[in-house]
Amino acid sequence: MQSPNTSAINALVSPEGSLEVLSQHEVNRLRKTSSDGHHEILRHCALAVLSCGSPIDDTAAMLRQYPDFDIEIIQRDRGILLKLTQAPADAFVDGVMIRGMREHIFAVLRDLVYVSNEIKRSLNHDLTTSDGITDAVFHILRNARVLRTNLPPNLIVCWGGHSISREEYDYSKAIGYHLGLRELDICTGCGPGAMKGPMKGANVAHAKQRTQLRRYIGITEPGIIAAEAPNPIVNELVIMPDIEKRLEAFVRLGHGIIVFPGGVGTAEEILYLLGILSNPENQDQPFPVIFTGPESSRAYFEQIDHFIVTALGEQIRDYYSIIINNPIEVAHSMKQSMQNVRLHRIEHKDAFYFNWQLKIDKVFQQPFNPTHQAMSELQLHRDQPIHLLAANLRRAFSGIVAGNVKEAGIRAIQEQGPFQLQGDPELLGLLDKLLSAFAQQGRMKLAGKTYNPCYQLIS
Amino acid sequence: MQSPNTSAINALVSPEGSLEVLSQHEVNRLRKTSSDGHHEILRHCALAVLSCGSPIDDTAAMLRQYPDFDIEIIQRDRGILLKLTQAPADAFVDGVMIRGMREHIFAVLRDLVYVSNEIKRSLNHDLTTSDGITDAVFHILRNARVLRTNLPPNLIVCWGGHSISREEYDYSKAIGYHLGLRELDICTGCGPGAMKGPMKGANVAHAKQRTQLRRYIGITEPGIIAAEAPNPIVNELVIMPDIEKRLEAFVRLGHGIIVFPGGVGTAEEILYLLGILSNPENQDQPFPVIFTGPESSRAYFEQIDHFIVTALGEQIRDYYSIIINNPIEVAHSMKQSMQNVRLHRIEHKDAFYFNWQLKIDKVFQQPFNPTHQAMSELQLHRDQPIHLLAANLRRAFSGIVAGNVKEAGIRAIQEQGPFQLQGDPELLGLLDKLLSAFAQQGRMKLAGKTYNPCYQLIS
Amino acid sequence: MQSPNTSAINALVSPEGSLEVLSQHEVNRLRKTSSDGHHEILRHCALAVLSCGSPIDDTAAMLRQYPDFDIEIIQRDRGILLKLTQAPADAFVDGVMIRGMREHIFAVLRDLVYVSNEIKRSLNHDLTTSDGITDAVFHILRNARVLRTNLPPNLIVCWGGHSISREEYDYSKAIGYHLGLRELDICTGCGPGAMKGPMKGANVAHAKQRTQLRRYIGITEPGIIAAEAPNPIVNELVIMPDIEKRLEAFVRLGHGIIVFPGGVGTAEEILYLLGILSNPENQDQPFPVIFTGPESSRAYFEQIDHFIVTALGEQIRDYYSIIINNPIEVAHSMKQSMQNVRLHRIEHKDAFYFNWQLKIDKVFQQPFNPTHQAMSELQLHRDQPIHLLAANLRRAFSGIVAGNVKEAGIRAIQEQGPFQLQGDPELLGLLDKLLSAFAQQGRMKLAGKTYNPCYQLIS
Amino acid sequence: MQSPNTSAINALVSPEGSLEVLSQHEVNRLRKTSSDGHHEILRHCALAVLSCGSPIDDTAAMLRQYPDFDIEIIQRDRGILLKLTQAPADAFVDGVMIRGMREHIFAVLRDLVYVSNEIKRSLNHDLTTSDGITDAVFHILRNARVLRTNLPPNLIVCWGGHSISREEYDYSKAIGYHLGLRELDICTGCGPGAMKGPMKGANVAHAKQRTQLRRYIGITEPGIIAAEAPNPIVNELVIMPDIEKRLEAFVRLGHGIIVFPGGVGTAEEILYLLGILSNPENQDQPFPVIFTGPESSRAYFEQIDHFIVTALGEQIRDYYSIIINNPIEVAHSMKQSMQNVRLHRIEHKDAFYFNWQLKIDKVFQQPFNPTHQAMSELQLHRDQPIHLLAANLRRAFSGIVAGNVKEAGIRAIQEQGPFQLQGDPELLGLLDKLLSAFAQQGRMKLAGKTYNPCYQLIS
Repeated sequence: MQSPNTSAINALVSPEGSLEVLSQHEVNRLRKTSSDGHHEILRHCALAVLSCGSPIDDTAAMLRQYPDFDIEIIQRDRGILLKLTQAPADAFVDGVMIRGMREHIFAVLRDLVYVSNEIKRSLNHDLTTSDGITDAVFHILRNARVLRTNLPPNLIVCWGGHSISREEYDYSKAIGYHLGLRELDICTGCGPGAMKGPMKGANVAHAKQRTQLRRYIGITEPGIIAAEAPNPIVNELVIMPDIEKRLEAFVRLGHGIIVFPGGVGTAEEILYLLGILSNPENQDQPFPVIFTGPESSRAYFEQIDHFIVTALGEQIRDYYSIIINNPIEVAHSMKQSMQNVRLHRIEHKDAFYFNWQLKIDKVFQQPFNPTHQAMSELQLHRDQPIHLLAANLRRAFSGIVAGNVKEAGIRAIQEQGPFQLQGDPELLGLLDKLLSAFAQQGRMKLAGKTYNPCYQLIS
Repeated sequence: MQSPNTSAINALVSPEGSLEVLSQHEVNRLRKTSSDGHHEILRHCALAVLSCGSPIDDTAAMLRQYPDFDIEIIQRDRGILLKLTQAPADAFVDGVMIRGMREHIFAVLRDLVYVSNEIKRSLNHDLTTSDGITDAVFHILRNARVLRTNLPPNLIVCWGGHSISREEYDYSKAIGYHLGLRELDICTGCGPGAMKGPMKGANVAHAKQRTQLRRYIGITEPGIIAAEAPNPIVNELVIMPDIEKRLEAFVRLGHGIIVFPGGVGTAEEILYLLGILSNPENQDQPFPVIFTGPESSRAYFEQIDHFIVTALGEQIRDYYSIIINNPIEVAHSMKQSMQNVRLHRIEHKDAFYFNWQLKIDKVFQQPFNPTHQAMSELQLHRDQPIHLLAANLRRAFSGIVAGNVKEAGIRAIQEQGPFQLQGDPELLGLLDKLLSAFAQQGRMKLAGKTYNPCYQLIS
Repeated sequence: MQSPNTSAINALVSPEGSLEVLSQHEVNRLRKTSSDGHHEILRHCALAVLSCGSPIDDTAAMLRQYPDFDIEIIQRDRGILLKLTQAPADAFVDGVMIRGMREHIFAVLRDLVYVSNEIKRSLNHDLTTSDGITDAVFHILRNARVLRTNLPPNLIVCWGGHSISREEYDYSKAIGYHLGLRELDICTGCGPGAMKGPMKGANVAHAKQRTQLRRYIGITEPGIIAAEAPNPIVNELVIMPDIEKRLEAFVRLGHGIIVFPGGVGTAEEILYLLGILSNPENQDQPFPVIFTGPESSRAYFEQIDHFIVTALGEQIRDYYSIIINNPIEVAHSMKQSMQNVRLHRIEHKDAFYFNWQLKIDKVFQQPFNPTHQAMSELQLHRDQPIHLLAANLRRAFSGIVAGNVKEAGIRAIQEQGPFQLQGDPELLGLLDKLLSAFAQQGRMKLAGKTYNPCYQLIS
Repeated sequence: MQSPNTSAINALVSPEGSLEVLSQHEVNRLRKTSSDGHHEILRHCALAVLSCGSPIDDTAAMLRQYPDFDIEIIQRDRGILLKLTQAPADAFVDGVMIRGMREHIFAVLRDLVYVSNEIKRSLNHDLTTSDGITDAVFHILRNARVLRTNLPPNLIVCWGGHSISREEYDYSKAIGYHLGLRELDICTGCGPGAMKGPMKGANVAHAKQRTQLRRYIGITEPGIIAAEAPNPIVNELVIMPDIEKRLEAFVRLGHGIIVFPGGVGTAEEILYLLGILSNPENQDQPFPVIFTGPESSRAYFEQIDHFIVTALGEQIRDYYSIIINNPIEVAHSMKQSMQNVRLHRIEHKDAFYFNWQLKIDKVFQQPFNPTHQAMSELQLHRDQPIHLLAANLRRAFSGIVAGNVKEAGIRAIQEQGPFQLQGDPELLGLLDKLLSAFAQQGRMKLAGKTYNPCYQLIS
């Protein structure tokens, strides 16, 4: 629209939602949490939220533009106030903060505090067990009031890249539009690109359908929110403590998943998802998954499909379908599948708002740190259930990407030489081929370098 | 998004809103109205409405694409059904009509029938008097449930061209965005261009502000709806019977008016508006009017300003302000003015939802047909109140435009020679100069011809 | 509670509901209507409404207590105000009128004006035909916003006497309570006694069930409202123009009817109802009717049942059932029947909110004036369809009651001698016996006189 | 209404409100809580709740009538179900539990579990300090969703006896009626008598005023709910863990208090209240307190007034007023005072929904057990602040009552002789005189015995 307004504002902001009614002890704990090392996270997240009022939509640039931005919790007799210093003026209208941003800021505070005070310190939550992790995910979502009863299964999770082409972005809007026309709600990782397009499209469609309850759920985490500010349409924002709980939130909350083209991150998410769905304990679960994109993304999905099927076997295709350039078919198919999900939940007396029955192996709930040792110990062979092979391939994939493009990974390779991978040469060859293809398509940020394998096979 | 879907659908559609509860006599009258010569109007309007689900947004093209489209009223014991034949498939989702379009279709039917049965045939409405016309405007709006109590003055009418540049369209979106951030509602003529941009912008801003009641009022008329289909965001649609009642609806319903760049039509609307506001009986009325556009439209508004001030005198500037390239200032200023409007209405015990006090001279309520005789009788001199001079200039303007670009006008000039205008040469010179400027800027559709005055001065 | 507050208040009251948005012409017509002979009706009805805030609940006494009460319509630019003079102070709280009474006052005004201006003067309503009368009933109810879509059939009409015993009143409350527990709504004639009990009971039950939409519809008429003020619980009040349209409103609006013990008026209503239901054109209509009361009312209903069956034949029992002293069975049975009503309306595509299909013979729509001539012409024999016999019996009944207890009737008998009735002696004997029984039970107001037949049989 | 239905029903009931969305761990803890000694409390409370559908309203009788009643928590994948065995049939309508009772049952479960799991076992709540106790009260109320933002101060607490005369009950209804007309909400201890009357009256008045949000808050405790079942009108039920927290909930939640006639319990409550309000730290608090009753209760309040003023000094009258037989004045005065409360809270930035600023000395937060030793150590002299004298008088009062009428107290007196009280003879004389008067008026349950002092003065 016009050039961005870079002037800054000082303001006191009163809370929205669950932080409106606090005891004086809670206010004290909140202030303490904020000062005990969480202050910088809170500051970054808050600035990210405030940046979505600006046309720039680039948090890194925002951070440079607002170096003196700060946030402080002020105690009042009846509760708290947030004191903002040098905050982006675009987040305010005639001196009053835009209400959606106020909600987002307090959602950030709510979740940071809840995880810090209730989840991490309570004896009720044992984060060393699979059940305990799932329980924590449930509590964070419930505390964020995202788990709503009396709604039929209609929440579609959309995954895909953040920096996609205009054509792909427009396609994701069209998908959102046709989902919205069918009164389906949207859940994404709440940044730009494929995270924003479906919500924008659905918003227009919901307006046309006069949909009363319009849910645009954004699920993010502190490590990512600074880079991918929640887009303005998100009206339910949750900050999960880490990437694994964020992924678990997606699959337990959503009733179907659509995957748009993306980079290597998207490919990893696909392996995560197929690893869970192919778990024999999940055989009966109706869980619609569609990979889709415009004509130009056909090659991308063909390569992924080829890799998956070759690595994991033909039967893996039971868990997803690929639809190219047909938003109506995608949306229609998702809508149809919701009926199966509904009947299955009713039959098994499971809730609509949280998929308790889905089995998520602990291997998918724990972070993977790709050290040389961890890489050399990966089980990359076919003598294991396919859902575990999927988990290991995802890890190998993750490590190779780190060795090529992430600072820590590149340094480790320089110092200790290539990763030593053991296992089935064919599998590793497939992986390598897929990554090369991504590099050629510009889907890996190589900073001008040519793609160069960072591993050796040991047989 | 994708290429348009030109397939057609047959469907039965049940009513929404005030047509839900009808007596059997009313159903009969409705069917009779539809068959008594109103059928073609109903068919055109309905197709226009249905076309807004399509990416094309061009009703003429739609009419060619759906030559067999038809609409029929079916009687059922409990009310009516609409039978649609060969209707655009894009207006339906999995066989069910999009709810917003269903509302629009029945709004069309509601207003055509109301005007035909209640306004034109009733003894209660005397359309030959100024009061009677105003009363009819009030009744049509009330029947359309647009007159709502318990709302503060916050309705901004946006006028401007339908075929404007991308830059101007984006600017109108920015204006709507900043109006919406201030919780102002939008009323336009409900076509594309400057009629759509402000609504789109406001829609995003209202979502950000979590505004509960979001009003996007579209006021159109049968002669124009076919060319300018109501855009998808309109959630209150009214079809006024003619252009004069439509203009009156705008000024009595709205609490402020923003004028974007447009063609000659927009200039005529400006003369209409200033003619009313400069009426001495309206001196006390707070009625904010802002002309605004991006930098590229500066010349347009300077020419209009020059013309108005020279013709009507310096004091005419009391009734409008010009703000170039500053959406925040425009929105902020409008918001501020709403407080004056509110206090004035309270003080004078006038309603917020309809401006009864505004004096509209009958000269502005009656259509002008620019025959040679009518043109020669226009009073184009300064020996009259400025609001009447504004009315006559508007008519001269209208006639000259007709003589240059409208089929009937061009033919009349060819047959009878140029219009013979009497009056103040300076005034006519100004008018001529303004029209030349518009022609140069491409704001008149001259179909490749050069602009050529179609009148002679007689002194 | 405490002794009644007889002090009076002057106040200006602003409108509620459909009279909030009026054109200036409408305000003029309203004032004119009020001054053109309707003023006294308006004054009486308004005082009746205002009296329901008082513990006395006796309008005649109220009229004596507030002899200077007056009501006037004041014109304001934005609409009307009511000016009340010497109004009962109990209708106000700290100077502000109780909201429910404000609604009732404006409901009175709304309906008086609508009938006077729209129904009686419009060419659209032909009150000489059966269809035209039904159409008028529909329009009055729609204008009062009582016809609501999206509600299932759940409206139970309760009829019965206004001055009943405490035991009967408590029984009617118990019925209302058990209807309310089943989320059924109540419609009555809106005075005290059996008109109030069911609403009070339902109100408590609806509170226990947390029922969102609670409808307590009162349908009255100007001739009766002064004697039977709308009780405080009524939240939808309609004033029909006469007793026949009021009865038609009950049977077209309600989905089932419960009859409590009453006087002769109640017996007349029973004949009206059975006359309609036994019409062969209504054979397929599911229309549940239950006569009910406490043990002490068993004799009353046995006598009525005996009379009906003997006069109209055994098959008349198809149209009603009698349940003594069992509120749960009554309520349960009504709830069950609603399902039949619902399926029947769906099957016949009839509306839920208005029973268009019910055939009401014109004989039931027209008032009967019991002159000597009219009485002598009654067809009181069995050579006619039972629904017409019911109609004639109802008229004979009405005339005999008038001859015994109504001032005009008594005088006519004194002057012209007894009514000369022709017809079946057995039928007249039955009638006579029933009336004697009522007289013995104290259900006829004979002012101390003994019951004495006022007719002669002519064979 | 009719004779009570004593038949019993077995049913499965699904939850309402905050127990709808539970994690599987929470369900386990809930079942464990229920089996760990809380089962009998839950059973009693549940039966008390279910008894309010019955006309008997006497829980003790209910317990005898339903000896086999039981309640069990059943685990389902998506949450819990309650299994009820041999439950009163009156709580069900056609097999479905009345919704208000379902809410009450789950309110009982919610509060028992919350206090047991969250308050008593958590390190966050230190119940040995005054602040910690207040914090616990706050958390229990918040968890019960009784603390609502966006409401003005309008909650009137009504105290008084449970077994009062019909005249006094009707008077309490009249008070509730006139409070309700002024759109004030009601909070009571939620049993019969003075706890029910104000709610019934307010319910009728709220219906007349068409009040949208109608709050009838009942605050009870496990020891009392079995004897005083929540009346049907209560729509927000809270079970506090003990009598002291219940009293604290009343004074922190309510914005004004009305005291009706009662027995000795009511007199104790008055001393509790005056002890808090006369605390010098509460001097600035606007806290309206009115003692009221019909004419027949004049003597009762005169005696109490005499006792209070003589014991605590003339200035204690600043904290209450006595209004006999004038519901309108009581209600009007309360409504007026709400404005002061509102301004005071705004000025001190305190919440409307919880009175954080009110100082409650720990002496009022801790239970008093009237042993001989405790009684002999009471400080009954005037050399102390009046709020502490009030506290000590309340305790002496409590002990003397126990010694006269409570089983444990009577036994202790029989075994150890009369209580030995030290202190000001005049004070004790006053106390004695007041109790004698209560005994004469039949306000103490002496089981036929004459009142006989159970203490000796030691000087």
